[in-house]
Amino acid sequence: MGSSTFRDDGAKALDWAASYLERVGELPVLAQVEPGEIRARLPEAPPERGEPFDAVLRDLDEVLLDGITHWQSPRFFSYFAVTASEPGILAELLIAAMNSVGIAWRASPALTELEEVTLDWVAHLLGLPRGWHGHIEDTASISTIAALAAARGAKPGHRIVVASEQAHSSVAKAARLLELELREAPVDDEFRLRPDAVDLTAVCAVVATVGTTSTTSVDPVPELAARCREAGVWLHVDAAYAGAAWICPEFAWSREGLEHADSVLVNAHKWLLVPMDCSCLWTRRPDAFRHAFSLVPDYLRTPEQREVTTLSDYGPALGRRFRALKLWAVLRCYGREGLQERIREAVRLASVFEEWVRDDSDWELSAPRPFSVVCFRLRGADAANDELVERVNRTGEIFISPTKLSGRTVLRLAVGNARTTEDDIRRAWDVLRREAAALQTA
Amino acid sequence: MGSSTFRDDGAKALDWAASYLERVGELPVLAQVEPGEIRARLPEAPPERGEPFDAVLRDLDEVLLDGITHWQSPRFFSYFAVTASEPGILAELLIAAMNSVGIAWRASPALTELEEVTLDWVAHLLGLPRGWHGHIEDTASISTIAALAAARGAKPGHRIVVASEQAHSSVAKAARLLELELREAPVDDEFRLRPDAVDLTAVCAVVATVGTTSTTSVDPVPELAARCREAGVWLHVDAAYAGAAWICPEFAWSREGLEHADSVLVNAHKWLLVPMDCSCLWTRRPDAFRHAFSLVPDYLRTPEQREVTTLSDYGPALGRRFRALKLWAVLRCYGREGLQERIREAVRLASVFEEWVRDDSDWELSAPRPFSVVCFRLRGADAANDELVERVNRTGEIFISPTKLSGRTVLRLAVGNARTTEDDIRRAWDVLRREAAALQTA
Repeated sequence: MGSSTFRDDGAKALDWAASYLERVGELPVLAQVEPGEIRARLPEAPPERGEPFDAVLRDLDEVLLDGITHWQSPRFFSYFAVTASEPGILAELLIAAMNSVGIAWRASPALTELEEVTLDWVAHLLGLPRGWHGHIEDTASISTIAALAAARGAKPGHRIVVASEQAHSSVAKAARLLELELREAPVDDEFRLRPDAVDLTAVCAVVATVGTTSTTSVDPVPELAARCREAGVWLHVDAAYAGAAWICPEFAWSREGLEHADSVLVNAHKWLLVPMDCSCLWTRRPDAFRHAFSLVPDYLRTPEQREVTTLSDYGPALGRRFRALKLWAVLRCYGREGLQERIREAVRLASVFEEWVRDDSDWELSAPRPFSVVCFRLRGADAANDELVERVNRTGEIFISPTKLSGRTVLRLAVGNARTTEDDIRRAWDVLRREAAALQTA
Repeated sequence: MGSSTFRDDGAKALDWAASYLERVGELPVLAQVEPGEIRARLPEAPPERGEPFDAVLRDLDEVLLDGITHWQSPRFFSYFAVTASEPGILAELLIAAMNSVGIAWRASPALTELEEVTLDWVAHLLGLPRGWHGHIEDTASISTIAALAAARGAKPGHRIVVASEQAHSSVAKAARLLELELREAPVDDEFRLRPDAVDLTAVCAVVATVGTTSTTSVDPVPELAARCREAGVWLHVDAAYAGAAWICPEFAWSREGLEHADSVLVNAHKWLLVPMDCSCLWTRRPDAFRHAFSLVPDYLRTPEQREVTTLSDYGPALGRRFRALKLWAVLRCYGREGLQERIREAVRLASVFEEWVRDDSDWELSAPRPFSVVCFRLRGADAANDELVERVNRTGEIFISPTKLSGRTVLRLAVGNARTTEDDIRRAWDVLRREAAALQTA
């Protein structure tokens, strides 16, 4: 593909992306396709000869788009709602154009050094302890594996990890990979880990969650940190979603005790406007990470090695993309104020929705709402709530995901997309009440 | 950022990317900066208020570019040379614009189904065994962790992994993470694992490499497969680099025996024109992967679950980007013929260079050249070769990386960037001879 073709095709791709973002609010949020439907509409065999780039855009329009669930929609309220902001999107274009592969400092010095600088910047914005070492992994799953591998190595013979029964599934998955035993601790009536129920015998790590997936509850980090410190146990804080809120002083309460933890992760691709993937991981104990991961083969040894950071020393992968550039672009283009504004607006919208639920006797709130996720349900049977989720998602107007709390089905409205307005929240409430009414007459 | 701003900023970002690709051949291939230099030129603290996207492009031009080692340069001959092709780059823009996060089938059905289709397409193109299950991980490091975790679970109590002493460092790193013992097997005089030297007692997996990092040697997969099969040991084939060559019938010899392996990885971001990151992993035994990784929490359970593929069942991460789209774009725009052409040209250029080395008595070849990497050295002391590498890299004209073979310093010329021409190879040879002469008179 020659240079002029790249400019022409690029203009088309950019137009496609811009048009997509302009109309994403009108598309069905949840893809309305059956399993296997997209696959069946694609050719079975690859082409023998190349086709113009237009063919890719045509595939998107004619086949793939029907199978896309639109995470960029202002009415995406499922899981944790996220945003790929415009500066972040354009940074991905630049990252791909340069295609830096960070397998060693000299393989791209700016990649390594910008990753250090941006992680320091985010640490500064979120009020993390000074001097911790930060780096980027792709997802919270891998960040958690990295942290628990460091913890395992730091406490030989101790093979138990403690986390609350509300901790993310990635903790259980990491424990399985690392052959650690996960001990699930019970929670109080606000879904927070109960430190009094934790036994630290044979434990190598405790995972505290700030912003659990189901309810965004906040585990008592100060108490856990004190107990871990006394017992010499690693405390890892999973703040994948809610850590972003630390940029606002009014959420500093949820960061308390962090200075006594050993590691913390915050996903910039969740609530900090960075496109997937960008999981930020900081640690007070970089030596333990290096002990777990450092390994430099002959073909990567260089004279400057002792003077520079080798980012693969801190996690399982050798190669890395220039992810720092998209984080940089977002920090540069939003600044502290721009990011604070989006966090606050999401929380405000969630509180508005919460009030509507509270004021309607057909519905009930199912958990406190510390951040931007509302847990609620239709009063009555689980089956009705299960059916309601499927009904509202089939409308394509909104997309929500349910969870289980104390064995019961609970709906979640996760606000977090930067395009979401009060009209979108209102529409969600309208759809929910309309479908609930239809359900009862069905 | 409003929509018109996105179009305007996007046009600037696209122009930056296009101009970059037009002039990348004129930039110093290896970044000519000192450790810490880029960092020192960046602000210590993040901005309070957002700035226009122009600021990011200015940062790139004025600060970051000096610290970029140009993997897109036609004279990048280090590690394994790679290419982010134009369709792949533009696909990354589209991927980021949609920002699909594949944590479940319904979270983006097209993401899951396109990943299955593209992996089937690549399997078809590379002549892999029919019916294997394929998925994408970010890097070969993670693919290897996934494969060895599956192998570990399939053979309880067996804790040894065998790989040749020429295997990639990611095998040792994965073994460490999984607490498996790596037993390094010796190689023959062409750097191929010696199957006669392999003892399979207590072994859960053998890793055979097709295209080792230092010399691209090919381990004897048929013999290893036969022995593994007999002993019930998992055979994982690391074809991260050379697997791409299987698209050409003349390299089918290096795929022999694969049908009896249990898993194989090929990095599409190496020699298949896809931007980082896209490591393709196939297995004959998807059940063993699911056994190692499947874990679906309440908040991800859906009614269609039994009918669909859950890609996180096959590796350590829950979330995934829509990487399949960039692989799709490359396959669509190059077709089998376009990809074959690039593989063959890289091999041809390497063979031309190899002949020049062979014909010059000041130099010697250090290993056979099955694909597109030439291993060679200046006759004489290691110190001279070590110094030569640093000298040629400091010119910025080419970038090569050395390795150690049988304890001696060896230079590698890795051809693989799609922009590389015979002129670039000629220039590499000129620079090497010029700097070698200067070294001898210095």
